[in-house]
Amino acid sequence: MGALTRRLLVIGADAAGMSAASQARRRRGPDDLDIMAFDRGNFSSYSACGIPYFVSGVVDQVETLIVRSPETFWDKQSIQVHLRHEVVEIDLDRGVVLVDHRESGHQREHGFDDLVVATGSVPVRPPLPGAGAEGIFGVQTLDDGVALRAYVADHTPRQAVIVGSGYVGLEMAEALCALGVETHLVDAAPQPLSRLDPDMGALVAEALRKFGTVLHLDQEVAGFEAGAGGEVSAVVTSEGTIPAQLVVLGLGVRPNVALAEAAGVEVGPSGAIAVDQRMRTSQPAVWAAGDCAEKRHRVSGRFVTVALGTHANKEGRVAGINLGGGYATFPGVLGTAAAKVGSLEVATTGLGEAEAELAGFVTDSVLSESTTRAGYFPGAAPITVKLVVEQGTGRLLGAQIVGKEGAAKRIDALALAVWNEMTVEELLGVDLSYAPPFSPVWDPVVAAARRAADRLSS
Amino acid sequence: MGALTRRLLVIGADAAGMSAASQARRRRGPDDLDIMAFDRGNFSSYSACGIPYFVSGVVDQVETLIVRSPETFWDKQSIQVHLRHEVVEIDLDRGVVLVDHRESGHQREHGFDDLVVATGSVPVRPPLPGAGAEGIFGVQTLDDGVALRAYVADHTPRQAVIVGSGYVGLEMAEALCALGVETHLVDAAPQPLSRLDPDMGALVAEALRKFGTVLHLDQEVAGFEAGAGGEVSAVVTSEGTIPAQLVVLGLGVRPNVALAEAAGVEVGPSGAIAVDQRMRTSQPAVWAAGDCAEKRHRVSGRFVTVALGTHANKEGRVAGINLGGGYATFPGVLGTAAAKVGSLEVATTGLGEAEAELAGFVTDSVLSESTTRAGYFPGAAPITVKLVVEQGTGRLLGAQIVGKEGAAKRIDALALAVWNEMTVEELLGVDLSYAPPFSPVWDPVVAAARRAADRLSS
Repeated sequence: MGALTRRLLVIGADAAGMSAASQARRRRGPDDLDIMAFDRGNFSSYSACGIPYFVSGVVDQVETLIVRSPETFWDKQSIQVHLRHEVVEIDLDRGVVLVDHRESGHQREHGFDDLVVATGSVPVRPPLPGAGAEGIFGVQTLDDGVALRAYVADHTPRQAVIVGSGYVGLEMAEALCALGVETHLVDAAPQPLSRLDPDMGALVAEALRKFGTVLHLDQEVAGFEAGAGGEVSAVVTSEGTIPAQLVVLGLGVRPNVALAEAAGVEVGPSGAIAVDQRMRTSQPAVWAAGDCAEKRHRVSGRFVTVALGTHANKEGRVAGINLGGGYATFPGVLGTAAAKVGSLEVATTGLGEAEAELAGFVTDSVLSESTTRAGYFPGAAPITVKLVVEQGTGRLLGAQIVGKEGAAKRIDALALAVWNEMTVEELLGVDLSYAPPFSPVWDPVVAAARRAADRLSS
Repeated sequence: MGALTRRLLVIGADAAGMSAASQARRRRGPDDLDIMAFDRGNFSSYSACGIPYFVSGVVDQVETLIVRSPETFWDKQSIQVHLRHEVVEIDLDRGVVLVDHRESGHQREHGFDDLVVATGSVPVRPPLPGAGAEGIFGVQTLDDGVALRAYVADHTPRQAVIVGSGYVGLEMAEALCALGVETHLVDAAPQPLSRLDPDMGALVAEALRKFGTVLHLDQEVAGFEAGAGGEVSAVVTSEGTIPAQLVVLGLGVRPNVALAEAAGVEVGPSGAIAVDQRMRTSQPAVWAAGDCAEKRHRVSGRFVTVALGTHANKEGRVAGINLGGGYATFPGVLGTAAAKVGSLEVATTGLGEAEAELAGFVTDSVLSESTTRAGYFPGAAPITVKLVVEQGTGRLLGAQIVGKEGAAKRIDALALAVWNEMTVEELLGVDLSYAPPFSPVWDPVVAAARRAADRLSS
């Protein structure tokens, strides 16, 4: 590589960062662009969403969660990936980052022309008394997952408490129940998955209890107790004390923006790094993608944070195309999400009732109960579809689905309807698929739209 | 009911006709509108798509396929349904139909103010030598299904031939294989499901062979041989003779328009009854809905026929709303279809490559192979997504999916993308759901869109 080779430096070697690196490489050869990525962790490009399944043993080998190793990045794409290297400072004036090699303790500067900040998110950890006890884990990184699984194997906890009932919290509850651990779930909200409307959240609570989770709702965590050896022994809540030899913190995450902010990169109203549609930050040489970058919600119009691999991949792709000399934009999000809770599938897209009201919409929701297959077909199982509809216009603002096998992925059709700003009457007319093994003749999604349309027109 | 009560008469008491009747009733009470439906068959409002599963025994009781009985229509909606009554003539000048009661042989006239023609479709039956032999069945009506199942039980055929490899033909092949019958499938086309592009059709052929179907492709049926008792003994094709004690004709259907055409109702270019968007025919007093009514294909812009319960229900609903004094329109179709063939799921929407070229599009297709769940998640299985894309613009014209459990229903997201005339680049940006039990982080649909978009932009 010549002295005039442009240098792209990527901070964070997971979904967003490596998508950016790969797309830039597709358009610029190694003689044209030198690409180097640093990550403070032990793994590159892995599936964080797979961690609960690694803890439960459903996924046996940690390697299977790794999409691509540093060796492969180098061999196939001439991209250098340095793990266990933490970027501790960005100097925009001089165009260098300071990198700390965690093992040796050596620090070194690396120059760049363009920088991609893909520093992801950090777990929310309120400063609770006793939070430093041994046996209290986050499940944020693959390193966390490996440590947690090893701890469970070594200490065989009888009781565990999961703090927070987001998607990861629920998946961890299932994982620990499957391992035979008495599992308690504590949440300050009156229902699990507080993004869901209460009628749908109640169905999720039922599923959690069904596989043995003890729910402690409407309870704040006040602190943790530890034994003489420093190992956690109980979780103290606003309602009492729950004995536990293992605690999993699932209180959500916040964008990891400290490094960029310190360098003078602007942070937006959501607390994530502000970016334009091409993923460029307020500093022309700096791009951001993934959990650390701000997203626009297409229905509410507000700026939000969402920590999800799908967006990270797409935003990284957009940044990489632009860095490689092409043109691409990221169109925003709907907050689509899905999870499996025991045999129950849960999915949501767009705005919930409360979110919609908050965004200034007057809503009129319908709840529709149906079956995943034709009613007479073996394996037909219940599915509940909720549509959040704008009063008057009939525009679909959001949707939620709770049901058995085959339920969750139906949210995608609804996401496309919300995305295209369709009304329920329009959605009802769409030519969706039907065959008895897959749906009733009125697909649950269409049946819900029909119910909403009938109500609007009557 | 007074002398001034308006009279709505419905010909055909299945999906389209009874949807129309129900919607009209929702808006007009019994004192305001008298509703009467006639059907020549033995059943009202049933699932024709369930017939193959009734034949195989997957669905045990014929009653479970019946959505609503005449008694229920009367008790709950004050709609009179007369089965085994065939309308044999429509007299528009006098505003009467002539009805033949099949059992008694009596004929009687019934007056109407508005008429809904929902006469469905009739099976295509080429005039082949020997076609009158015993043991040759269509699978068009529930009566056909009942007769076929009884015949199989009584005659325990060792060998069966299915003529035609549409969705019903494939489902019947699976049903008969499951019953232990040596099953042969004959089709004039070089592959099963000729609507699929050849690369996708090959995957279906493989699945058929896997559960024991013997394929005779590129072969025309020339006639049938019968034994001394008049029972079918073999099928003669352009390539030879296949012994068979049972023959199922799955050569497709055509709209049943004879009655309406004889009365002066206009038939459109597709051969089905021409209707406006509100489902009114060329005769102001006559409405049509379901298989017998013409549909506009939203991508090709052409008039087509599609025999599918989903459209029948929606068109009937539209006709009924308009007849009840409301306003509704039917927006056209995409030709979306899905079927299960053994453990393989097949689905299609919009135009195939050949159809697109015929409609004047220049296409550029991509084939993308992926998995139904995250690759590392138990139960992850292959799925192939094909996108038919307009060259230059990147507009999605159609899509086909072949894969294992969880594959088919993904066509709905693609149907919505085609419906909204999205480009592959736009589709790639849509916020679709992701969790390891449901999809890889690049959902197969999004991965296919990405591949197409990458090709367009490079």
